[in-house]
Amino acid sequence: MIQGYDPRTGEPVGEPVLETPAEGVDALVELAASVAGEWAGLAPSVRADVLAAVADALDSQADELAALADSETALGEVRLTGEVGRTTGQLRLFAGVLRDGGYLDVAHSPGEPDLRRINRPVGPVAVFAASNFPFAFSVAGGDTASALAAGCPVIVKAHEGHPRTSMLTAQVVSGALVSAGAPAGIFGLVHGVDAGVTLLRNPLLAAAGFTGSARGGLALQRICAEREVPVPFFGELGSVNPVVVLPGAASARAGTIASGYAGSLTLGAGQFCTNPGLLFVPSQDNGLLEAVAAAVSAAAGGPMLSERIHSGFETAVAGLAGHPAVRPLATGRRGEGPWAATPRAFQAGLDDFAAGLPTLTEERFGPAGLVISYPDVGSLVAVLGRLGGNLAGCVHVDEAAAGDVAAARRVLEVFGRTAGRVVVNGWPTGVAVAWAQHHGGPWPATTAPAYTSVGAAAIRRWLVPVVYQDCPPALLPPGL
Amino acid sequence: MIQGYDPRTGEPVGEPVLETPAEGVDALVELAASVAGEWAGLAPSVRADVLAAVADALDSQADELAALADSETALGEVRLTGEVGRTTGQLRLFAGVLRDGGYLDVAHSPGEPDLRRINRPVGPVAVFAASNFPFAFSVAGGDTASALAAGCPVIVKAHEGHPRTSMLTAQVVSGALVSAGAPAGIFGLVHGVDAGVTLLRNPLLAAAGFTGSARGGLALQRICAEREVPVPFFGELGSVNPVVVLPGAASARAGTIASGYAGSLTLGAGQFCTNPGLLFVPSQDNGLLEAVAAAVSAAAGGPMLSERIHSGFETAVAGLAGHPAVRPLATGRRGEGPWAATPRAFQAGLDDFAAGLPTLTEERFGPAGLVISYPDVGSLVAVLGRLGGNLAGCVHVDEAAAGDVAAARRVLEVFGRTAGRVVVNGWPTGVAVAWAQHHGGPWPATTAPAYTSVGAAAIRRWLVPVVYQDCPPALLPPGL
Repeated sequence: MIQGYDPRTGEPVGEPVLETPAEGVDALVELAASVAGEWAGLAPSVRADVLAAVADALDSQADELAALADSETALGEVRLTGEVGRTTGQLRLFAGVLRDGGYLDVAHSPGEPDLRRINRPVGPVAVFAASNFPFAFSVAGGDTASALAAGCPVIVKAHEGHPRTSMLTAQVVSGALVSAGAPAGIFGLVHGVDAGVTLLRNPLLAAAGFTGSARGGLALQRICAEREVPVPFFGELGSVNPVVVLPGAASARAGTIASGYAGSLTLGAGQFCTNPGLLFVPSQDNGLLEAVAAAVSAAAGGPMLSERIHSGFETAVAGLAGHPAVRPLATGRRGEGPWAATPRAFQAGLDDFAAGLPTLTEERFGPAGLVISYPDVGSLVAVLGRLGGNLAGCVHVDEAAAGDVAAARRVLEVFGRTAGRVVVNGWPTGVAVAWAQHHGGPWPATTAPAYTSVGAAAIRRWLVPVVYQDCPPALLPPGL
Repeated sequence: MIQGYDPRTGEPVGEPVLETPAEGVDALVELAASVAGEWAGLAPSVRADVLAAVADALDSQADELAALADSETALGEVRLTGEVGRTTGQLRLFAGVLRDGGYLDVAHSPGEPDLRRINRPVGPVAVFAASNFPFAFSVAGGDTASALAAGCPVIVKAHEGHPRTSMLTAQVVSGALVSAGAPAGIFGLVHGVDAGVTLLRNPLLAAAGFTGSARGGLALQRICAEREVPVPFFGELGSVNPVVVLPGAASARAGTIASGYAGSLTLGAGQFCTNPGLLFVPSQDNGLLEAVAAAVSAAAGGPMLSERIHSGFETAVAGLAGHPAVRPLATGRRGEGPWAATPRAFQAGLDDFAAGLPTLTEERFGPAGLVISYPDVGSLVAVLGRLGGNLAGCVHVDEAAAGDVAAARRVLEVFGRTAGRVVVNGWPTGVAVAWAQHHGGPWPATTAPAYTSVGAAAIRRWLVPVVYQDCPPALLPPGL
């Protein structure tokens, strides 16, 4: 049984949900595989209409969905209603991707032989929902939307943190799919850790998408790799998302930067894979460190998603606090409930920080930041090159200061190699749903750095090419 | 020491070559990594000119290269001179890919935030050369050409079967790179199995490409996966490339099909990953089986590349001959030398073949084919769906016969899901170097079914995206 909890009280909320037995999981995959060809064979414009219908259905129940999700996650109805909108926006984005047609990557080399290439859907896809986005990275989230768009059936493994939200979302999605004429069985939902493992081991499964912790993701990736027929695993794991404040920016905008940092650090109780875990500030005293301390001290924490996440955060904070290189900088206000996180900022010098690698670059899921003072850009850049892969890297620069611009080039050169997204004068939280977006990054940020889980290119995870050689027009597949 | 052998005599040929010690391998990777930024930072048109210069240099020594390769592989100077041309054609194709610019996959989503995405090179690449293509899939082959084009330094692990050809090729490539102004160190060559392992374990290595056996490829893939920072491994492994002859085609063109089959089966002593290992013919007696037997009986074998490959082929043939489902159909003429392969064809009924899966679908590297008689297209299609992934699947169809066209659709539907390349009225051997080519396929044909090792898209293996958010024009990388 999977029981949802109200993070504001730590008490059970709603009826528990049954774990899906192995035979139930396998039956869903078999059904999905049996209708995969029908779904893949529909014209892209028809699949686009179906996705749009799913989006409309979710929008029409946005308030109910957000209220239920708030009871299981305490993320707040405003944020959650917005997240339903982000989710339906994603579905509509992929409807647009289908109408555009570029995702098929059609190519033709005439001559002898005549070659015509097109992308085909890979087959049934497993989607592992995330704790911290009960809509946008869950049952009807970006993985589901992109895989359905590609022409793949989807079986979602619900996150234990919001079982009833997952069920209601799945009901809305299933109902809309059927009403819109999609074949029954192209979408399914399973509950429970064991069900997720059974799902990955089913021989008919073709690929898997995951957003979550490095530990969980790597365990699932191993299952995918050790199958008789291995399947690709697209895991978006943890990240510490370094932010560099250059000297000119620190002097010109200390207050703005400090409040922006505290806001990004504590947004959603810090429960974002794009949380700014590392802030690099100039050693020269320019008021920034003091402003950061003040901003974090003034920030409020909030209830974390689950007891497990909360205790993981407490352990990570204790580890940071006990690290010899690190000293406390600021403590914010405790949030409500038994699993409330208190915002924390710590401080270290660059050399001490570098000596503490890689421990000090481990993700601390929650509102805890490490502020590192660097003496000069040369020393900073050398250390940035040792951080490993990240989803995002940010630099704050005073564009009017020549020294900042030159330094920014050096920082961006490193982030251009080590981060999936490079942000100038902004914060890592907030990943826009847009055609050109890339939400990915080198290991250990993701298990598949060439791919993104947000934006139009997310559909590529579920496609493989096939080329037709000297194929008469009458025998070519639709799309060629 | 790595000794080359003349396959026509089994005797050593030329001086042995030293294995590269571990420190030598690591030094090459470190040097490559140190100049990776310089190579990546050159304008694509400059890298294109460099690739064209390498192609010119190889062409100018084509005769010498082919003669040396013939002494180590016995593939024949005509074939080998042609293969040098294929190799330089590949280098020029990627020069064209660079001038085209589409490989950068630039995308722009204006608005708030402003997002600009571009592909960047992944970093130093290891290339594992193949035995059976001493040029086109070796030192200066498609993996090297595509990785250099992408902006990645390349370290090639030479194949033990042609050490001196590898060295001469590397000398020509290195000389041309330096003359054309490429940074010293972006290309290196190592010898020996241990050197290959050291190469894959070097922390600075970013990706690897491989063409060869499933056994070797899977071992190397495991090394890539078990690194502290895993790197992608693009392995093109074995394949049996099923060919289906439909009843109409069998009746109309038995002789042509039989001679085409024998030619494809015995080309290069059958030493192609695209060898037609399985031929499906209608059970109805129409002369095809007899014609196939006659054509294979008339075909000559040839010296295989190495003692190891020859003994592997003999073992595989003995296994096939001893399988209870299989009976001999034809034996060709033995080739020259101690490692000569004799063309062989075997026969089985569809039900017996299906009962012998997956053993009977294992690759038999060499000129040995299994001819399976099928009673009807429905039974055939059910079995085709159980073959696993292949590089190619072929169907011979009489387009004037309605029954053939309908049957071809069913066969193509299966191949469209299970093969990387679908050929109509042709043979799987011969992979054209063309923009639209896809030389890949589902597991176990490759370890990365979304990618190709031939054609313009091969460059994608060595690229990862990065997106710039709200980045001022002055700080954007070249290409944006």
